[in-house]
Amino acid sequence: MKETDSLTCSDLRPARKAPQTAIGQVLIEALPYIRKFERKTFVIKYGGSAMKDLCLKNSFAQNVTLLRKVGINVVLVHGGGDAITKTAEKLGITSTFVHGKRVTDKEMISVVQMTLAGKVNQDIVQLISEHGGKAVGVTGLDADTIQAVPCRDAATLGLVGEIESINTAYIDLLCKAGLIPVIAPIGFDDDGNIYNINADDAASSIAIALKAEKLIYVSDVAGIQVGERILKTICKAEAADFIEQGIITGGMIPKVLSGFLTLDGGVRKIHIIDGKSVHSLLLEIFTHEGVGTQFISEQDDESNH
Amino acid sequence: MKETDSLTCSDLRPARKAPQTAIGQVLIEALPYIRKFERKTFVIKYGGSAMKDLCLKNSFAQNVTLLRKVGINVVLVHGGGDAITKTAEKLGITSTFVHGKRVTDKEMISVVQMTLAGKVNQDIVQLISEHGGKAVGVTGLDADTIQAVPCRDAATLGLVGEIESINTAYIDLLCKAGLIPVIAPIGFDDDGNIYNINADDAASSIAIALKAEKLIYVSDVAGIQVGERILKTICKAEAADFIEQGIITGGMIPKVLSGFLTLDGGVRKIHIIDGKSVHSLLLEIFTHEGVGTQFISEQDDESNH
Amino acid sequence: MKETDSLTCSDLRPARKAPQTAIGQVLIEALPYIRKFERKTFVIKYGGSAMKDLCLKNSFAQNVTLLRKVGINVVLVHGGGDAITKTAEKLGITSTFVHGKRVTDKEMISVVQMTLAGKVNQDIVQLISEHGGKAVGVTGLDADTIQAVPCRDAATLGLVGEIESINTAYIDLLCKAGLIPVIAPIGFDDDGNIYNINADDAASSIAIALKAEKLIYVSDVAGIQVGERILKTICKAEAADFIEQGIITGGMIPKVLSGFLTLDGGVRKIHIIDGKSVHSLLLEIFTHEGVGTQFISEQDDESNH
Amino acid sequence: MKETDSLTCSDLRPARKAPQTAIGQVLIEALPYIRKFERKTFVIKYGGSAMKDLCLKNSFAQNVTLLRKVGINVVLVHGGGDAITKTAEKLGITSTFVHGKRVTDKEMISVVQMTLAGKVNQDIVQLISEHGGKAVGVTGLDADTIQAVPCRDAATLGLVGEIESINTAYIDLLCKAGLIPVIAPIGFDDDGNIYNINADDAASSIAIALKAEKLIYVSDVAGIQVGERILKTICKAEAADFIEQGIITGGMIPKVLSGFLTLDGGVRKIHIIDGKSVHSLLLEIFTHEGVGTQFISEQDDESNH
Amino acid sequence: MKETDSLTCSDLRPARKAPQTAIGQVLIEALPYIRKFERKTFVIKYGGSAMKDLCLKNSFAQNVTLLRKVGINVVLVHGGGDAITKTAEKLGITSTFVHGKRVTDKEMISVVQMTLAGKVNQDIVQLISEHGGKAVGVTGLDADTIQAVPCRDAATLGLVGEIESINTAYIDLLCKAGLIPVIAPIGFDDDGNIYNINADDAASSIAIALKAEKLIYVSDVAGIQVGERILKTICKAEAADFIEQGIITGGMIPKVLSGFLTLDGGVRKIHIIDGKSVHSLLLEIFTHEGVGTQFISEQDDESNH
Amino acid sequence: MKETDSLTCSDLRPARKAPQTAIGQVLIEALPYIRKFERKTFVIKYGGSAMKDLCLKNSFAQNVTLLRKVGINVVLVHGGGDAITKTAEKLGITSTFVHGKRVTDKEMISVVQMTLAGKVNQDIVQLISEHGGKAVGVTGLDADTIQAVPCRDAATLGLVGEIESINTAYIDLLCKAGLIPVIAPIGFDDDGNIYNINADDAASSIAIALKAEKLIYVSDVAGIQVGERILKTICKAEAADFIEQGIITGGMIPKVLSGFLTLDGGVRKIHIIDGKSVHSLLLEIFTHEGVGTQFISEQDDESNH
Repeated sequence: MKETDSLTCSDLRPARKAPQTAIGQVLIEALPYIRKFERKTFVIKYGGSAMKDLCLKNSFAQNVTLLRKVGINVVLVHGGGDAITKTAEKLGITSTFVHGKRVTDKEMISVVQMTLAGKVNQDIVQLISEHGGKAVGVTGLDADTIQAVPCRDAATLGLVGEIESINTAYIDLLCKAGLIPVIAPIGFDDDGNIYNINADDAASSIAIALKAEKLIYVSDVAGIQVGERILKTICKAEAADFIEQGIITGGMIPKVLSGFLTLDGGVRKIHIIDGKSVHSLLLEIFTHEGVGTQFISEQDDESNH
Repeated sequence: MKETDSLTCSDLRPARKAPQTAIGQVLIEALPYIRKFERKTFVIKYGGSAMKDLCLKNSFAQNVTLLRKVGINVVLVHGGGDAITKTAEKLGITSTFVHGKRVTDKEMISVVQMTLAGKVNQDIVQLISEHGGKAVGVTGLDADTIQAVPCRDAATLGLVGEIESINTAYIDLLCKAGLIPVIAPIGFDDDGNIYNINADDAASSIAIALKAEKLIYVSDVAGIQVGERILKTICKAEAADFIEQGIITGGMIPKVLSGFLTLDGGVRKIHIIDGKSVHSLLLEIFTHEGVGTQFISEQDDESNH
Repeated sequence: MKETDSLTCSDLRPARKAPQTAIGQVLIEALPYIRKFERKTFVIKYGGSAMKDLCLKNSFAQNVTLLRKVGINVVLVHGGGDAITKTAEKLGITSTFVHGKRVTDKEMISVVQMTLAGKVNQDIVQLISEHGGKAVGVTGLDADTIQAVPCRDAATLGLVGEIESINTAYIDLLCKAGLIPVIAPIGFDDDGNIYNINADDAASSIAIALKAEKLIYVSDVAGIQVGERILKTICKAEAADFIEQGIITGGMIPKVLSGFLTLDGGVRKIHIIDGKSVHSLLLEIFTHEGVGTQFISEQDDESNH
Repeated sequence: MKETDSLTCSDLRPARKAPQTAIGQVLIEALPYIRKFERKTFVIKYGGSAMKDLCLKNSFAQNVTLLRKVGINVVLVHGGGDAITKTAEKLGITSTFVHGKRVTDKEMISVVQMTLAGKVNQDIVQLISEHGGKAVGVTGLDADTIQAVPCRDAATLGLVGEIESINTAYIDLLCKAGLIPVIAPIGFDDDGNIYNINADDAASSIAIALKAEKLIYVSDVAGIQVGERILKTICKAEAADFIEQGIITGGMIPKVLSGFLTLDGGVRKIHIIDGKSVHSLLLEIFTHEGVGTQFISEQDDESNH
Repeated sequence: MKETDSLTCSDLRPARKAPQTAIGQVLIEALPYIRKFERKTFVIKYGGSAMKDLCLKNSFAQNVTLLRKVGINVVLVHGGGDAITKTAEKLGITSTFVHGKRVTDKEMISVVQMTLAGKVNQDIVQLISEHGGKAVGVTGLDADTIQAVPCRDAATLGLVGEIESINTAYIDLLCKAGLIPVIAPIGFDDDGNIYNINADDAASSIAIALKAEKLIYVSDVAGIQVGERILKTICKAEAADFIEQGIITGGMIPKVLSGFLTLDGGVRKIHIIDGKSVHSLLLEIFTHEGVGTQFISEQDDESNH
Repeated sequence: MKETDSLTCSDLRPARKAPQTAIGQVLIEALPYIRKFERKTFVIKYGGSAMKDLCLKNSFAQNVTLLRKVGINVVLVHGGGDAITKTAEKLGITSTFVHGKRVTDKEMISVVQMTLAGKVNQDIVQLISEHGGKAVGVTGLDADTIQAVPCRDAATLGLVGEIESINTAYIDLLCKAGLIPVIAPIGFDDDGNIYNINADDAASSIAIALKAEKLIYVSDVAGIQVGERILKTICKAEAADFIEQGIITGGMIPKVLSGFLTLDGGVRKIHIIDGKSVHSLLLEIFTHEGVGTQFISEQDDESNH
């Protein structure tokens, strides 16, 4: 996290003005996207430095509020693993992980609820409010929004769930009212169990259920990297090649596969952008160039971000 | 709490059937209230045994769901002092009270948020869901709903707040969509402070802001008692007399005064009903007799509950 | 009519109060039906003692008004054979019946119109008005509502008709406006003839045309009786058995067959209830038990009345 | 009634065609009125030969249907004194009149209801139906439309009423649905009494309550006659002069006074036209000349009929 | 043009009044057409004497305004060849015609635009305004309404175009707002070329695109003449016969063929009427007889004009 | 016009890209204006080099189309004096000017109509169409939009008019439909006279009548110049001072006075911007800095452009 350490709030102060012709160009480029994306839905998975560093938090909240103000339906999904571990510690409860997933018993699910729904979620709501947006905290229990089932490794992991179905009515209601739903990925089943759900997976399921225009991952991963270069665009066939050739490796493989599954589910584009860079959200959405990697089905979709 | 101790879930099983003519009478009496209260708003302060005893919780959730299903806008406001104390204890934090109010510093407000918004609130949402209703957890931060200011004793009490204004748009949106808002009384101010607010006071402010038809206190107090008798109705003048004559005394005095202030604020009726009795909510609303005490402005309003 | 002779208006006075728990049960049972039946259409064939006895008339009008007030579209169809015979007598005209049907010549059809549309119908309209409902007298001529053709025995019976088609637009208009259509079963054909139509048959045709939720016969027949017992529910297969076994006999056979034809026409339930019992209409609709016999297609539809 | 005796149905057959230029003129003159009167309300008091002679009845029904088809809200009010007397006779009841008004006891009001609502009204509904219009019979009892009080001479006349108030909701509903209300002037009071009301008076009250554009009297009086001439227009001041000078005399005086009272009540124009002349209704409404007498407040309103 | 020479404005003054019965007949005949044609679209090709003679211009504008006022969507299409030739002359440009079509180079298309769009069109707009209508000048460029391609003889004729497609949105917008579009038949293509389009062809394409009820040619041709007689109606089969038998000949043949093509395109009727006769438009539309020739598909459509 | 001579179309090609942070800043600055100006009306007076130079014409059309696409109601008003003079010349008509205003007789007004409405206006419509906008040519005669009276110097100037009233219904209709009205300032009076109206004055009257948010003058005047500097903002009091002190002089004085009159008429801001600079329209509207001079009532309105 060296990069963000050196980042100061001065980055949010006006930069040296771009010359007028350049400003004109930026506007000519950006304005058509606004009309194009009006009333479209963007699901944003919010995590990493953008959720911790004060400057980045402010930049993110400012961007999200602007997106909502120009008529885009913005839906946030957040995790909060570190915070949960800290609360558990204070309560004298040890966190155990199997394959990176938190073992979650009855006691731990209470800690998850208290921390995610009671604190992390409300902090995001408040952050957006401070930048002039109106956000609403949502858990999967509210209006029966996220119905879950135990995950495959339930024997080991306990109350870790997978999404069975999303009831979109409540999220749609909030979007139509100009509000920003901030979703803590907690689900329920008909037997009264509460489940802890992986936030990346929840974001994907929610984007599919909402027939979202975009699913945007804001994290400390700046995009799909090939050598020195961040790919601007990646299509399904290329991804398969890169994986086969050992160019995309390790933890990035499941991320890439999941992205294309979400595309197949009907979401028009998936974006991975760098949460450590100010305004990356606006730049990805309103410039032809973009700043991260977008996933598309076919190569000829590459044009506009 | 002796009364509820002896209560078993059998109270929810069908009683010996009333004879047919009597059933007809009940219906003739109840049906007109349904049309009368359609699309009216009832704010219900939920607390006491009805929030702890399993049978009473189920009966309450069943009643609330029915009220919503027959078209009444139901808004719940809850407290949760005991739960907060317990969570604080587990975290090794001591709760201090001055004149019955919790001293709330930065650390404690986090405990309040986690417990009220993260756990107590979500448990009520889930309880209603199990009875077929659709509830939504709401804190004062969501959609900027509850703007607060420090209370008078802020020097001593810290982040204990009073409601400055209620932004009703979000609550109205939820009610119009047939959802049941379940409100945790947490407020915010423009400087980014979060406040712990007394639930009774919050319920009163919310009822006034929503121009509610009724504010109903469901608690372990069965109504205004005069000698052996629970008063069916009390008007302003009577209340003044009873207080002067020492018939209403002690902790009941501020409750009564607050009730009449809420009436003056434009809420049409205030009810105090016994949460320890099953179906008390339905009986108070749909029978001429009622089961608790209703506050009215003038004696001639006494007719229909 | 011995039963109703002993009935006095005291039956409409409050019975000894049912105990509170029982009242709660009645409400818990009744309220869901209200939402279920909102904006649904109930066609009620009104006849027998409930149209003659003062107490029963008042009870019926009170029930009908309540049904309308809780949002049910109520459509009444009435006959009036006795009244027609009386008017005919006063005018010195003899009534002749063949197989229970009135021989109707040009002179007699005028008597039918004057008596049914001019008097019986208007008396029902007025009765409902006195109980706070808004009813509207309707004949088949109004807005071309009932198109008729001569019945099979027209050679003998003259202007006795069968319904060819129902123009539902006018009835729908009245229902949507919260009015109660009170229909006198008089039809017309394109050659300017007016027809006298059997009220039971008219009710069935009207219920089918309106895609009614229920067709309810209020008469002096309390239901389908098997031995001592009134059947709560009867399905098609059972009815066939009972008829074959000689358990259902005589005049009841055509009634039963007609009921199942109406079911086949798309009306969801047919009810036969006892007009001699006060509030039988409310009890049949708002209790699980009911008081009469309901016709259903298959045995597994039996649940809720 | 000599004039109508000689009238044959040939009058409804096409006349020798007017030459083309003349036809063009008629259209140029008529078309603007159609737009002008769209969605305006015309109350038509229907009586005299136009209600008895077959040709005139057909011509009237054809005209009324056309008015409705071009978008005018047509409301008919009819009497039926002769028919009532005949029915009473057949029932062996003697009709007694005091100052031209029928003495009406309980028995007689039943005769009035049966004859007016059951027969005369339904005959008009059927007549209009045969010409392609959709009419609906209405009495003052339907939807509580006409609330009445006893007239001043109630001691002598019995159940002869005056209109206390008109509930216009039902009439408006019918007009908006494109239906033609045909109103029998029978009223009710809160004590359950039914009243016989003078049809001319009812038409005037109904026109005022509906804020009608026109009240048109179709009867055997062709207009206000001064010497040989039928006045095309009469204003208030002229009427006063004519009465003072003895030019308007006898039974015409109350008619004229009542017309101006109706004007004062807010109806824009009153017309008296000759029911014995075919198409007089269309000619009065769609030509500059008109055929009868129109009542206007001030002389400068005289232009367009 | 002898006929119109002798025509004076007195023809617009009221003719000797038709007798009242005849007026009634005219109305009885005309009124149903008004309802029938309400919100239907009539495309009128305006040309010939009706566009030059002052009296005929006024009569035409009066008729068109009336049609619009009674709720018909009137769309005018006009040519203006003579005016273009005159302007060209003044600018010292010679007009050349090949097979009756104007050779149109870049310079000439400017003359066409200036004359048609700038003058002829605006004169019609003003003429209608003077008679109380609200007209709007439209060229094919406005809102991209008429997309054109070069005509077959483009090599010889230059910028003479044929209609490729009509964008009806703007015309529909104007009609719904009660305005009268007055269309100058000028089209454009995607390469920035402007085309001169034959007005008769434009009228046909526009009528088809608008799914018009009628296309009416107002010109100096009074209809299809067979011997002395103007045919009232002509169907497809008859037309084929007449052409084969040499009864319809010369320049009338393409007109007739084009008329039936327009019918096939979905326009319900084509009318050719005499622009030299006052009110011919109203007479054709609002009388059974009509004054010109109507084209129908099958003989049994002949009834009402 | 030296400046524009040196301008080449390369100015429309992308400039060297601004660095990303700067792009982010431009967006952060611009986006809020979009929501702010949605459905607001901007009247743009179009003239000078921006109407002649090909690059500037394209830039202007691109900007105008973008403004419309982001939801702003754009209304253009144009003049065309040079073109009129040229057409007149070709027709052998001499143009005479008094105090800079064209002497306009009957012949000249025809030249004005043909040139402005027939050619200049249609060229602008076509230009916008080529950039993807939908424009509609409008003259004051269309839908009776501009009612005029003779100007004060009518004795000398002839048919030069002043605007008496604007009928905004048609312009509003076009704006609501997403179309861009392009208005040629030609008016009419009730006597059938057509008037030539000064385009600046027309723009001002139209902006006031439409209650426009902005009136923007695009011409070769870059703003109010004080010494070397273009004023960013000028308020009423300052303007008075500058005129008194001789800083604003000559032809600029009436422009400034007219601007403040338009402000007083209810238009929120007046802008003068440099038509010779590409994208000046977008820069003025979507940046805090702006590029021209804005007129405001009071100094404290200065903030956002």
